[in-house]
Amino acid sequence: MAKIVGMEVLDVRFPTSRELDGSDAMNPDPDYSAAYVVLHTDGGPDGYGLAFTIGRGNDVQAAAIRALEPHVVGLDVPTDAAALGALSRALVGDSQLRWLGPEKGVAHMAIGAVVNAAWDLAARIAGLPVWRFAAGMSPEELVSLVDFRYLSDALTEQEALDILRAAEPGRAERIAKIERDGYRAYSTSPGWLGYSDAKLARLAEQAVADGFEMIKLKVGGDLEDDVRRMKIARETVGADIRVAVDANQRWDVSSAIAWMTELAPYDPYWIEEPTSPDDVLGHAAIAKALAPIRVATGEHVQNRVVFKQLLQAGAISVLQLDAARVGGFNENLAILLLAAKFDVPVCPHAGGVGLCELVRHLSMFDFAAVSGSDADRSIEWVDHLHEHFTDPAVVTGGRYLAPSAPGFSARMHDATLRRFTFPDGPEWTEIDSE
Amino acid sequence: MAKIVGMEVLDVRFPTSRELDGSDAMNPDPDYSAAYVVLHTDGGPDGYGLAFTIGRGNDVQAAAIRALEPHVVGLDVPTDAAALGALSRALVGDSQLRWLGPEKGVAHMAIGAVVNAAWDLAARIAGLPVWRFAAGMSPEELVSLVDFRYLSDALTEQEALDILRAAEPGRAERIAKIERDGYRAYSTSPGWLGYSDAKLARLAEQAVADGFEMIKLKVGGDLEDDVRRMKIARETVGADIRVAVDANQRWDVSSAIAWMTELAPYDPYWIEEPTSPDDVLGHAAIAKALAPIRVATGEHVQNRVVFKQLLQAGAISVLQLDAARVGGFNENLAILLLAAKFDVPVCPHAGGVGLCELVRHLSMFDFAAVSGSDADRSIEWVDHLHEHFTDPAVVTGGRYLAPSAPGFSARMHDATLRRFTFPDGPEWTEIDSE
Repeated sequence: MAKIVGMEVLDVRFPTSRELDGSDAMNPDPDYSAAYVVLHTDGGPDGYGLAFTIGRGNDVQAAAIRALEPHVVGLDVPTDAAALGALSRALVGDSQLRWLGPEKGVAHMAIGAVVNAAWDLAARIAGLPVWRFAAGMSPEELVSLVDFRYLSDALTEQEALDILRAAEPGRAERIAKIERDGYRAYSTSPGWLGYSDAKLARLAEQAVADGFEMIKLKVGGDLEDDVRRMKIARETVGADIRVAVDANQRWDVSSAIAWMTELAPYDPYWIEEPTSPDDVLGHAAIAKALAPIRVATGEHVQNRVVFKQLLQAGAISVLQLDAARVGGFNENLAILLLAAKFDVPVCPHAGGVGLCELVRHLSMFDFAAVSGSDADRSIEWVDHLHEHFTDPAVVTGGRYLAPSAPGFSARMHDATLRRFTFPDGPEWTEIDSE
Repeated sequence: MAKIVGMEVLDVRFPTSRELDGSDAMNPDPDYSAAYVVLHTDGGPDGYGLAFTIGRGNDVQAAAIRALEPHVVGLDVPTDAAALGALSRALVGDSQLRWLGPEKGVAHMAIGAVVNAAWDLAARIAGLPVWRFAAGMSPEELVSLVDFRYLSDALTEQEALDILRAAEPGRAERIAKIERDGYRAYSTSPGWLGYSDAKLARLAEQAVADGFEMIKLKVGGDLEDDVRRMKIARETVGADIRVAVDANQRWDVSSAIAWMTELAPYDPYWIEEPTSPDDVLGHAAIAKALAPIRVATGEHVQNRVVFKQLLQAGAISVLQLDAARVGGFNENLAILLLAAKFDVPVCPHAGGVGLCELVRHLSMFDFAAVSGSDADRSIEWVDHLHEHFTDPAVVTGGRYLAPSAPGFSARMHDATLRRFTFPDGPEWTEIDSE
């Protein structure tokens, strides 16, 4: 049997702060980056994963991934749910490393990168994209992947099994539908804070012409600007297109409520990250005050325990999981099951580096095998940096096409890795010498 | 004016897993460790701080501290609240590094280590121990140190100012009382899971003889063992000594309630860390079910936002802040103010490496200048590894003596640093060659 014989970790950074793409109220100048991991094997394909960061500290993230090497190198190449469950448990269960979280932050994102790389590897060997590979597993296999610790007051193993069994009929039809029609996307491209009003209007108009049913604006910098931009967006797209807004954690509870009350006349579909991602009770208070405006969060929610509480408290109407924030596919499966239990739609966070590539697998798997529904669900789309991936996300007519190449789609081109490795790649050394 | 001219970060590890000291239900074999930081100056004293970990991953923690160097090197040496507030804001406010948390895990503990090193430096220059240095600041200066973001629904700046002003009368008397009588300690030394019943009984008896009014047992490994150990402890110490228990996050909500119901006949004073430190709602459910047994947590609570919610939800009756888990003195001041607002006693977590040394400053400062009370408050005491510190914590008659040496007491002896540096110190190279 083939073995994992090495782990390679690269610090890859894109100088996105040179433009204002990606600018928002909390992140004025991100350099979109990836701590990129390759699991080398002694036969067959390698496995690829990544943790997304926004620049400084990507080296710390890379160090955290390297700390997991002793758990990975020497393993048989994982090919099934049993092996993928065992790997996740070994990584999460390292009692010394656990102190660094537990299950949060740099150390937890590192686990996510490695677990996702292992899924990539297993799916490549199976010759399937991850979403189809996972959708081929039985409910029992899927449940065996999940760590139910700290979840049982909201979701038991039996309840999870019931959810998955209820979605078994129709799996094949839904897979066929995904392969035919893709999965709904929404566009964040018009709404970065750094853009002029004219650029906002032009991009919003273009998004509608391109088939998107929802766009999203960044807010939280200046109230007067936000009211004007929201008005422009609404007037540009008309009443039938959804306009969501995203404050990127900028507010306290009372300011979130006051600010959004000013934007309410323009019918915002959701307010995303109104406050700290750690503040379950704060989100609940905001949701109660602002209904029927939905509250959404998730890209910075650290693990399944916080998602559990957001759902228990009725704090969110939209759950925005992230492919690279939590402990990889396994924990995202737990989160999809929680969302299904509470009947809250999942609209994943994407953008950044590789997040669009990864997260489409999760939404498509969810539709095929977990929630069985795509109602009120869509995946964020930012048309940015996809050219660096060997199996890039493609959106046409406002829909993500189904990935068909084997794996989890995190692999970058060799030329990209050479050029953007920090601090020694030519993209960075040439800048420094200018 | 003197400047900070360099930052040195060391990976220091003690091979505590060779004994069973420190063993509990989640942490069977910790190697108590510190990512140790020195702020070198070009005149006057240097500043010392640390983040505590339990072995593997201490290198990742050290890397996270190093990532903060550009914010620190070149600064004027901080001497007052204005400079200490500005440094904390600069570290927390780095928008790229913030992505690694935000404000949690490895990246946040790194901020804590550096902020505490800056306090050490400022207090050394003032010629005072940190608790007295801080207790000499005005309410306005203290409030200027606090980041109120995400707190205003529970604690406003004005309310914080009112709390601090209310504690101004009597500061001098309370400082004198601390210097005369010290501060109440409780002992965890009898209760590690790895100890035999005979050792438990002997150490419990010794603790009472030594003047402690409370001891603590680790629980959560095996129910039958825990019932037997709790019975031994209660019979040994009698009805008047408090016996707290600590599950180190081992349980889900329902198992916490069921397990503690079995221990209830032996009158446990508090149950510490019954479940995930992230689970505010879980702690609230446990507290409601187990009253009048108190619920305590904090050593793994990631930041002020989670403490805020634990207090808002009535989830804890005892708040166990940790000197090295959150963003340093500044965030711990926010947490002390929240506890005072909600009238919940603070009983800090200690033990590990240097935590007893650091945290006594926080409790003594709290009594002097924030809550103004020491009722139902005590500091954990584990008599372990203190010999490595230049200003070690000393407990006699069940009370922490007031530290009087200038600084925050995190400095280790040079010989310790030479011997225990990982992986190149002789403590580790000699083991490897055995």
